[in-house]
Amino acid sequence: MNGAQALMQTLVDSGVDTCFMNPGTSEMHFVAALDSVHEMHSVLALFEGVATGAADGYARMAGRPAATLLHLGPGLGNGLANLHNARKANTPIVKSVGDHATYHKQYDALLESDIETVARNVSSFIRTSQQPADVSADAAAAVAAAMGPPGQVATLILPADAAWGDPATPAPPVVPVAAGAPDPVQIQAIATALRAGEPSALFVGGRACRAATLVDASRAANAVGATLLCETFPARLERGAGVPPVERLGYFAEFAAVQLAGLRHLVLIDSKAPVSFFAYPGKASDLVPEGCEVHALAGPTDHVGAALAALADALGAPPDSATLAAAGRPVLPTGALTADAVCMAVGALLPDGAIVSDEGQTSASSALRYTAGAPRHDWLSLTGGAIGQGLPVAVGAAVACRDRRVIALQADGSALYTLQSWWTMAREHLDITTVIFNNGSYAILNLELNRVGVDTVGSRARDMLDLRRPDLDFVALATGLGIPATRATTADEFVDQFQKAVATPGPTVIEAIVV
Amino acid sequence: MNGAQALMQTLVDSGVDTCFMNPGTSEMHFVAALDSVHEMHSVLALFEGVATGAADGYARMAGRPAATLLHLGPGLGNGLANLHNARKANTPIVKSVGDHATYHKQYDALLESDIETVARNVSSFIRTSQQPADVSADAAAAVAAAMGPPGQVATLILPADAAWGDPATPAPPVVPVAAGAPDPVQIQAIATALRAGEPSALFVGGRACRAATLVDASRAANAVGATLLCETFPARLERGAGVPPVERLGYFAEFAAVQLAGLRHLVLIDSKAPVSFFAYPGKASDLVPEGCEVHALAGPTDHVGAALAALADALGAPPDSATLAAAGRPVLPTGALTADAVCMAVGALLPDGAIVSDEGQTSASSALRYTAGAPRHDWLSLTGGAIGQGLPVAVGAAVACRDRRVIALQADGSALYTLQSWWTMAREHLDITTVIFNNGSYAILNLELNRVGVDTVGSRARDMLDLRRPDLDFVALATGLGIPATRATTADEFVDQFQKAVATPGPTVIEAIVV
Repeated sequence: MNGAQALMQTLVDSGVDTCFMNPGTSEMHFVAALDSVHEMHSVLALFEGVATGAADGYARMAGRPAATLLHLGPGLGNGLANLHNARKANTPIVKSVGDHATYHKQYDALLESDIETVARNVSSFIRTSQQPADVSADAAAAVAAAMGPPGQVATLILPADAAWGDPATPAPPVVPVAAGAPDPVQIQAIATALRAGEPSALFVGGRACRAATLVDASRAANAVGATLLCETFPARLERGAGVPPVERLGYFAEFAAVQLAGLRHLVLIDSKAPVSFFAYPGKASDLVPEGCEVHALAGPTDHVGAALAALADALGAPPDSATLAAAGRPVLPTGALTADAVCMAVGALLPDGAIVSDEGQTSASSALRYTAGAPRHDWLSLTGGAIGQGLPVAVGAAVACRDRRVIALQADGSALYTLQSWWTMAREHLDITTVIFNNGSYAILNLELNRVGVDTVGSRARDMLDLRRPDLDFVALATGLGIPATRATTADEFVDQFQKAVATPGPTVIEAIVV
Repeated sequence: MNGAQALMQTLVDSGVDTCFMNPGTSEMHFVAALDSVHEMHSVLALFEGVATGAADGYARMAGRPAATLLHLGPGLGNGLANLHNARKANTPIVKSVGDHATYHKQYDALLESDIETVARNVSSFIRTSQQPADVSADAAAAVAAAMGPPGQVATLILPADAAWGDPATPAPPVVPVAAGAPDPVQIQAIATALRAGEPSALFVGGRACRAATLVDASRAANAVGATLLCETFPARLERGAGVPPVERLGYFAEFAAVQLAGLRHLVLIDSKAPVSFFAYPGKASDLVPEGCEVHALAGPTDHVGAALAALADALGAPPDSATLAAAGRPVLPTGALTADAVCMAVGALLPDGAIVSDEGQTSASSALRYTAGAPRHDWLSLTGGAIGQGLPVAVGAAVACRDRRVIALQADGSALYTLQSWWTMAREHLDITTVIFNNGSYAILNLELNRVGVDTVGSRARDMLDLRRPDLDFVALATGLGIPATRATTADEFVDQFQKAVATPGPTVIEAIVV
């Protein structure tokens, strides 16, 4: 058994049995190992950002890490934006990066670069295997680091000679480490603070956004009349009819300030104290209101479910006191096709058990509202602000949950960063319906130009935010990448196309020309 | 004048008047400055790898740096692969990266990351402006660092408050530093070594691949019967009828070994001693034959033209003793469309003064041979091995040379990394003819699998190198990105389409289905 085979066997023995890859020459032995380690499911991407974003989406839905296989420093660079997003979400990923053979590095060949330095931006665990016998132990350490808690991006650099050399043997399976138990003293202190009856909010994020945990969050909030808020971009929010509804903190600081105004207690549950996404001249970056005390109930290494259950019990909340969202759908839109009409149609027609990958940006702003009473579903957000995550995350979620329909709500400008995702959707026959909001611009930047204090916006600046000249034709792009696609220009057309798309196995793209 | 305006004025005053950009919120003041500094020509890209690769192509042809504008750490990550390629080629690039406002960084907002760490992989000059008053001097220092010699990627990190704040004033224009004069003692020593009549080769790279310099290289080589070789992937090779021909060192070490066999002297002129691109089990990484002495005539900080002229003179080479390539074209191919037939047609029809961006990989292997006697042209290679450079480099070359026809010879798999380039070609009405070699696979990896010592290649491994299932339709992809496109399935169709494409202003794509 060579190093590559031992690595792959170690991964699958520890439950990491899916690898999103874009390999090159230095990774050929890893690729060859697929034919001896049949438990590994490999998914090919045409661009590394697809592979890394898919690994993120996979882990969010599967609850365990996927692996990625990237080609040296430049391949890692191409995957870096979505690894940044994964890092911000504490998503576990075992990132393997091939490298030149150890003895070849001294020659500074063309593809030589400092992989560890690039990896450092997204990984606190970085290890380079020096010989075949080390690979398995290094891989097991990477898996353990990725799993956490907290989940993280772990980097395993695999020189070609460590992959092709032997002998090597697989490492024992990694045993996951349990999250930390809640601290009763801290729970009581927070309960005492909340019982005073001052304006309070529970602010959930990360792993606290699952249905079972939200039930306890809602119980606790109801017991003291607190607001239940969630972070602006939760990695995975379970929601819909029968799940406690949470109010999402606004992206724009002006709106978030209204939501937080007057609070005296803000309890963090796997979330961070809210800050402005960007800085704006003359506006505060820290969104916590003056006089509001911030309490950390549970962080990324803690068992958030146990902590919230304990808090709810400490507050004397009855078991069945959670607020649950009522079933309810908007009517089907008709007439002109606006972004709002698209969101309304999605709300009216969202399939039971759907997974929504939301990178709709400004266009999808009403989608959460319209889907609030839809059948239970998962909502996956852009977690680190680096656009180009939505389509890859949809790929990974669909690979993890082959029995569920994935809906990708996708802005036009953002789609172009990782459009190669569509080819992988077609190749893997994934049940993904992509809705492209084509408004012909980086619309959010037109808003931001004024918000950052640009007084006079000239034509040359506007031109840099304009995606017309030429118009993007997403039907043609989807066709080019092997996916059937349609174009909707009225709400009625969109409704018709969306109904058909979610009822048809495999991927489809609907380009919504929104006015 | 705010920091962004002062930055932009400093750049244009120093001759950096073209910026390839993909901006976000933190760069909005730079974008707004376009309407007050009209000398700056800004080119929008839909993906950062297009912007960085275009800056590379621009500098290779214009002989001076372009600027790029990227959005924080993730934007830099997306641009990193082509910056790696630029670094390997000593291409000067002034890379501006926007960042959060200085006071905002402490809050670890979602897009916060360690930009300097990522930049370190490609830049030895990295500076973060701390206040508006510093921006101009920092920008001037970045321009000076980029210009070199040697040329390099210089990174200027621009926090939002340094951009929007004032007052700031432009810095004085940067005065380029002259390359180092040749060392007469070293020249004489090399001349003496070569005069002994032992098997020798001059090995040119970098800036030594321009016509005027090649004339002196050829004179020197002819004076002592030495071979004239050039590096495998020269950044810009001037060639064609009337220019001294050079033999390119083979990509495969086996072929390179034949070219270098028996040499006793190898003279480096802005090149590095040849090494294998990748390591292969049991094969040498260092390609310099045993017993061959390596002489460094001129490096990246030296005046390579003066050094070669001095060497030729020291060897007593007459002024007109250079070998010049004779004019000559292959016949037009007919019948089945092979990759070789495509190259033959390009050789037969290459326009006078064309610029060829070659990322054709295995498919374009005969292109150099067929164009050897074509009218004088420039040949731009993949300089750092990170694929996805060809189309962006074509964009930059066409922006730099609006009166010349650019031909992008592009492999299918590599095209998918930075396909967004086509949209910028359309937007800027660039005279670029892209030829896609569609062979439905990562063909080079099928070769490499065996070369790296994989004995048995199974079906699952082969599947990871396969670009069919689904087939890529590049005509549809080009249409989606706003470029007219045609598909050729016979040599005759290709000839017809290529003739029309190079005679039509603006960009065109020809998808060559090669067998």
